[in-house]
Amino acid sequence: MADQMRCLLLICDGMGDRPVNQLGDKTPLEAASRPNFNALSGGGVNGIMDPIAPGIRPGSDTSHLSYLGYDPYSCYTGRGPIEAAGIGMDVRPGDVAFRANFGTVDDGMVVKDRRAGRITEGTGELAKALDGLEIDGVEVIFKESVAHRGALVLRGEGLGADITDVDPHEPGVKIHESQGMDEASKKTASVLNQFVRISHDRLGELSLNAERVKNGMLPANIILPRGAGILEPTPSFLDTHGLRGAAIAEVGLIYGVAKILGLDLIRVVGSTGGLDTDLEAIGRSATDALEDHDFVMCNVKGCDIAGHDGDAGAKKDFIEGIDSMLGGVMERAGEHSLLIVTADHSTPVSIMDHSGDPVPICIHGPGVRVDDVSEYGERSCARGGLGRFRGIDLINIAKDLMDMAEKFGA
Amino acid sequence: MADQMRCLLLICDGMGDRPVNQLGDKTPLEAASRPNFNALSGGGVNGIMDPIAPGIRPGSDTSHLSYLGYDPYSCYTGRGPIEAAGIGMDVRPGDVAFRANFGTVDDGMVVKDRRAGRITEGTGELAKALDGLEIDGVEVIFKESVAHRGALVLRGEGLGADITDVDPHEPGVKIHESQGMDEASKKTASVLNQFVRISHDRLGELSLNAERVKNGMLPANIILPRGAGILEPTPSFLDTHGLRGAAIAEVGLIYGVAKILGLDLIRVVGSTGGLDTDLEAIGRSATDALEDHDFVMCNVKGCDIAGHDGDAGAKKDFIEGIDSMLGGVMERAGEHSLLIVTADHSTPVSIMDHSGDPVPICIHGPGVRVDDVSEYGERSCARGGLGRFRGIDLINIAKDLMDMAEKFGA
Repeated sequence: MADQMRCLLLICDGMGDRPVNQLGDKTPLEAASRPNFNALSGGGVNGIMDPIAPGIRPGSDTSHLSYLGYDPYSCYTGRGPIEAAGIGMDVRPGDVAFRANFGTVDDGMVVKDRRAGRITEGTGELAKALDGLEIDGVEVIFKESVAHRGALVLRGEGLGADITDVDPHEPGVKIHESQGMDEASKKTASVLNQFVRISHDRLGELSLNAERVKNGMLPANIILPRGAGILEPTPSFLDTHGLRGAAIAEVGLIYGVAKILGLDLIRVVGSTGGLDTDLEAIGRSATDALEDHDFVMCNVKGCDIAGHDGDAGAKKDFIEGIDSMLGGVMERAGEHSLLIVTADHSTPVSIMDHSGDPVPICIHGPGVRVDDVSEYGERSCARGGLGRFRGIDLINIAKDLMDMAEKFGA
Repeated sequence: MADQMRCLLLICDGMGDRPVNQLGDKTPLEAASRPNFNALSGGGVNGIMDPIAPGIRPGSDTSHLSYLGYDPYSCYTGRGPIEAAGIGMDVRPGDVAFRANFGTVDDGMVVKDRRAGRITEGTGELAKALDGLEIDGVEVIFKESVAHRGALVLRGEGLGADITDVDPHEPGVKIHESQGMDEASKKTASVLNQFVRISHDRLGELSLNAERVKNGMLPANIILPRGAGILEPTPSFLDTHGLRGAAIAEVGLIYGVAKILGLDLIRVVGSTGGLDTDLEAIGRSATDALEDHDFVMCNVKGCDIAGHDGDAGAKKDFIEGIDSMLGGVMERAGEHSLLIVTADHSTPVSIMDHSGDPVPICIHGPGVRVDDVSEYGERSCARGGLGRFRGIDLINIAKDLMDMAEKFGA
């Protein structure tokens, strides 16, 4: 395998931004000291990329699907299946999956708290009381996640995912009866409504909740599912592209995308998903993974968090941390690797949420048409040799440079 | 017709490339002395074009279809129909066509040589023994091509092209029974399998083969078809675009595309399809054809050959030949013509095959937004006013500049 080119795709979550007044009308990326980013751009070919399409505000899940060559408009039906896969649940084609909260309702099913007092302990025990139920022949699989979160999978014949939420999304409101839009979805809605009632009956009886009430805490006495999605049959990354893939991430959502596509999931000790994460350890794991994979996708989360917080300084600082990590990555990846550095979307500090701005991208490695861009940034990359293209095309560009693309025609 | 603008599309087959170490990290095009190419770029608008889509490795057939405004993903089902049309066969919608070799098998139908000892003479006589057969109501049309090559057309009701090859693609292996994937294709496979057996029976009896054996040569005692494709109903270039089109090419594959779309086929004396071709004669024929056509597509093959050979020097030299031809073309085409110069794909000398890299393009003529690019090359054109776009859009851009485009909306 020594001669097969490898590819490392480094995705800096939410790194793209807009000019920030307090940074002298530079973006956090442009304002950052970034010698390694700039060396990469100077030796590579640069451009800007629309994760989905111009002006479309991407989620991290939809953009990652695109970058891996899966059109999210055809394979993405909701966040549920990806969240469920991301916490290690076995989601199969045809399953309808949901994100879910442990919540608190009163006797009239009016929501007192959508997060059950931000419960942090004992949710595993609560989940056990619900996991494995069967309702109208549909199998119920439930698993707790971090804090008040969990995921629900319904498995059975003929289920649909076009249903309304049970979670009313605000306190003081009675939970909703889920409604299905078609026959298959009506079946799902009926099972879901029964499940929610059962969850209230069963959780209310548990001693853990009696204990919480005794201690002045809100009981976690209901499950509030939302974000229904059905997992479409999706060919694996290996079958689709002929590449052995691995993923390094810091949050469940990205691991969920990777798991659904059959990538090897690599967990990095010291990775926290926050601004305090161990970037050096992540970078080292990424290049280590190149040893036995053709394609390694590595997502670091920090920029997105700083963007959502509206903190330009923290974003700039985190980018400087990535720059330092990137130096080691470039050294270790060696000459026979393709190194692609980009973001999954922009999270401008002025917006404090994802935006539809394109993201900078640099491709570095053997054979690329090195251009005269010498700085890595939103505006400098726009003058590069790649021009502007869409996220869904990225994997094809990578495979072509790896000499792994099939010819279309003669 | 004096006022109607004409368009000459010059396609330098496989001209795009990647930086080549021995050329000082320039591409063969960048390294070539090319005053006329550069004058064209200096007076035109430039860009880069993905023949099919970013990263997709095009065939010459699929890219030419795209440039002429036909989406190969919907109209291209295989090389067979284009090859057959390219050698002058009358291929009609619904026909299933194949490339075919004259080959040699032993009595157990094991392939001894896929090319019948690279037979060069007498294949016309062999073809006559097979052409005009009827099998299960399906008409069999067979024609020899160059050397051991030929093409087979099956014409009848309800045929499909989703079948496996008879040709095992390697010697020492028994020929395969073709299998059809659906009802229509099963019918095709059955006729094809019978045809192959009949070809063996009939060709074996011919005196030409007895003569070859007597002289120690391998008999051409079977036809080995491959690359099945069905010709989809395809509206002509004239009907589609309202342009009277002509094609100048050097190889059958390009003529095949042109013939299927109803372009006038122009043969140039002195054109060889090789590095020794008479470029001057080709250029003169191209401008001559502008006299009585609205749109002339001209393909010169040499760069692609040098690319497949991995010969950077030969590629650079051939480009200098094109440059010289281009000088005359620019002079003769005059001010009232649109001149578009591009490649159908890249054939990097480092890859020795087609790659998915974009190709440079320059559009020169009245009304174009002349940019500040002054060199024609893969990287200089990327900084041009056309940005990056796809081959399927080219004909629309040309028609718009020719004032031949219909308004969409009010």
